[in-house]
Amino acid sequence: MFAFIFTTFEPLQYNHYMNYRIGVDIGGTNTQIGLVDENGKIKNVSVIGTRDFSTFSAYSKHLSETILKMCPRIGTLLGIGIGAPNGNIHNGTIEFAPNLPWKGILPIQADIQKLTNFPAFVTNDANAAAMGEKLYGGAKNMNDFIVITLGTGVGSGIYSNGQLISGHHGFAGEIGHVITVPHGRLCACGRNGCIEAYASAQGIVKTYLETNGEKDTNTSITTKNIYDLACNGDESAIQTFEKTAELLGLTIANSVAYTNPEAIFLFGGIVKSGNFLIDPLKKHMEENLLVNYKGKIRLLVSELEEANAAILGASALVV
Amino acid sequence: MFAFIFTTFEPLQYNHYMNYRIGVDIGGTNTQIGLVDENGKIKNVSVIGTRDFSTFSAYSKHLSETILKMCPRIGTLLGIGIGAPNGNIHNGTIEFAPNLPWKGILPIQADIQKLTNFPAFVTNDANAAAMGEKLYGGAKNMNDFIVITLGTGVGSGIYSNGQLISGHHGFAGEIGHVITVPHGRLCACGRNGCIEAYASAQGIVKTYLETNGEKDTNTSITTKNIYDLACNGDESAIQTFEKTAELLGLTIANSVAYTNPEAIFLFGGIVKSGNFLIDPLKKHMEENLLVNYKGKIRLLVSELEEANAAILGASALVV
Repeated sequence: MFAFIFTTFEPLQYNHYMNYRIGVDIGGTNTQIGLVDENGKIKNVSVIGTRDFSTFSAYSKHLSETILKMCPRIGTLLGIGIGAPNGNIHNGTIEFAPNLPWKGILPIQADIQKLTNFPAFVTNDANAAAMGEKLYGGAKNMNDFIVITLGTGVGSGIYSNGQLISGHHGFAGEIGHVITVPHGRLCACGRNGCIEAYASAQGIVKTYLETNGEKDTNTSITTKNIYDLACNGDESAIQTFEKTAELLGLTIANSVAYTNPEAIFLFGGIVKSGNFLIDPLKKHMEENLLVNYKGKIRLLVSELEEANAAILGASALVV
Repeated sequence: MFAFIFTTFEPLQYNHYMNYRIGVDIGGTNTQIGLVDENGKIKNVSVIGTRDFSTFSAYSKHLSETILKMCPRIGTLLGIGIGAPNGNIHNGTIEFAPNLPWKGILPIQADIQKLTNFPAFVTNDANAAAMGEKLYGGAKNMNDFIVITLGTGVGSGIYSNGQLISGHHGFAGEIGHVITVPHGRLCACGRNGCIEAYASAQGIVKTYLETNGEKDTNTSITTKNIYDLACNGDESAIQTFEKTAELLGLTIANSVAYTNPEAIFLFGGIVKSGNFLIDPLKKHMEENLLVNYKGKIRLLVSELEEANAAILGASALVV
């Protein structure tokens, strides 16, 4: 009897005082919606197809309905954080996102607030990753750090003086589009030589093909394949990581000269390429650091689990 | 009689409520000390020879005595701001400044506070320039801007969210030591390809000599000479500014990708090379900007007078 009372009371009491956040990760294919408790635990996830809606208003209506269905029955929902490509933190909009089906400026914050009656916040995926690292990850006790996301693109979120740097127009932290190789490779942004053209998944595959003397034809090779090849001692694969680290290490060293962070966190699947990438990256970063910074900047791997990071990061927008 | 009373009372009343700051500009040759009123007017200047003192403690004792002699007799002295090469805003020290006669870490803040009994603050010259631009210059109403100082070296001070970015170790804003040309020219910092090696006064002279096919022997040519040559239609001189602008414009465009400022202010004698530098600089910056920033970032000339800027900037440290 005592045990029964205890087990029914305990969870109720616990939930009653718990605050929750909704984190929304808008991707080109799927939109993931997660209910996150105040300890950074994801309690419930829904997925909707981003491309299943011909208009943006039909999409945001369905997204809002999904969010409302996920509200905790006991506890307080503090708000909704949305991570989206080209999400503008100042305007609450998604602006000209190349991989979404709707063009122009999309009023995501206004739509979701109106349809759910909860406060909503928007930023881009990389800023969300940095906010997640600060709230739930390895940067909890840091005021000055940078998170660099390595994936389809290369993004970043920068914290300084304990605050996310958002910039005058809401577009700070575009380290992926720093031109590291003047007149270099064509980047998806239309310019040449951005670090994204070398350190994104596609950029790494391109370096592997070039190292092998192959033309950049349609290939199904992935960075995971290149990692496996490197593990088997393939020289081209090992060199590919070395070349990637040379350019990314220089870019990271240059980044330190702007905000002098305590640490740089790397986030994304490629970071699991372990020592093939991280070791030469540390070497090239250190080599290129100004003397004031040498030996002082920590190059770390994100402490957020990749599968959860986008939702956690988006939810961290709600403060 | 009325006029007499008015003229004696008015200045007294004015001075009585006036707050003052002392700004100290420590250079390799001279140290300038200025008394600055709350309107950014320099009321009095003293100069001492930086190299006239064999020990740092003799120097800081003389500096403190000079400061105390300059205290306003009517009004309040809020404190002392010190701009120094390698000045560390967190530690209140000057750390390993190559052009000062004393080596190692110099406890300038502690010494001056102890000897004067006024609060003292330290930062490097470029951060002081940015603080001066914010308090007295063209950035009064801006929260996100960068000041780039072009002189013997290339320095910078970065404001974001209305705050100076100081960095975890107190050494943020070293844009002069961003490597723009991998494996490029040897820089004074010992590394290769920093923008300082191209856009400092010495760097510009070197580019002129290279453009002319001359070896970098001892030369007495100055950037002022190169400007005069450009005014007279000298092709090498005009090309020198164009080449400088190409590299500096790229570096500035890359800088925008970090903090997304509203404006970049240029400061230093070379900025007076007017259209020979500024016009191609605007063109190259704009060409290299990511699409999100194109047409949105203002490239401006500092509104501080060069002769006063170092003292004003240092005084702006006192808030």
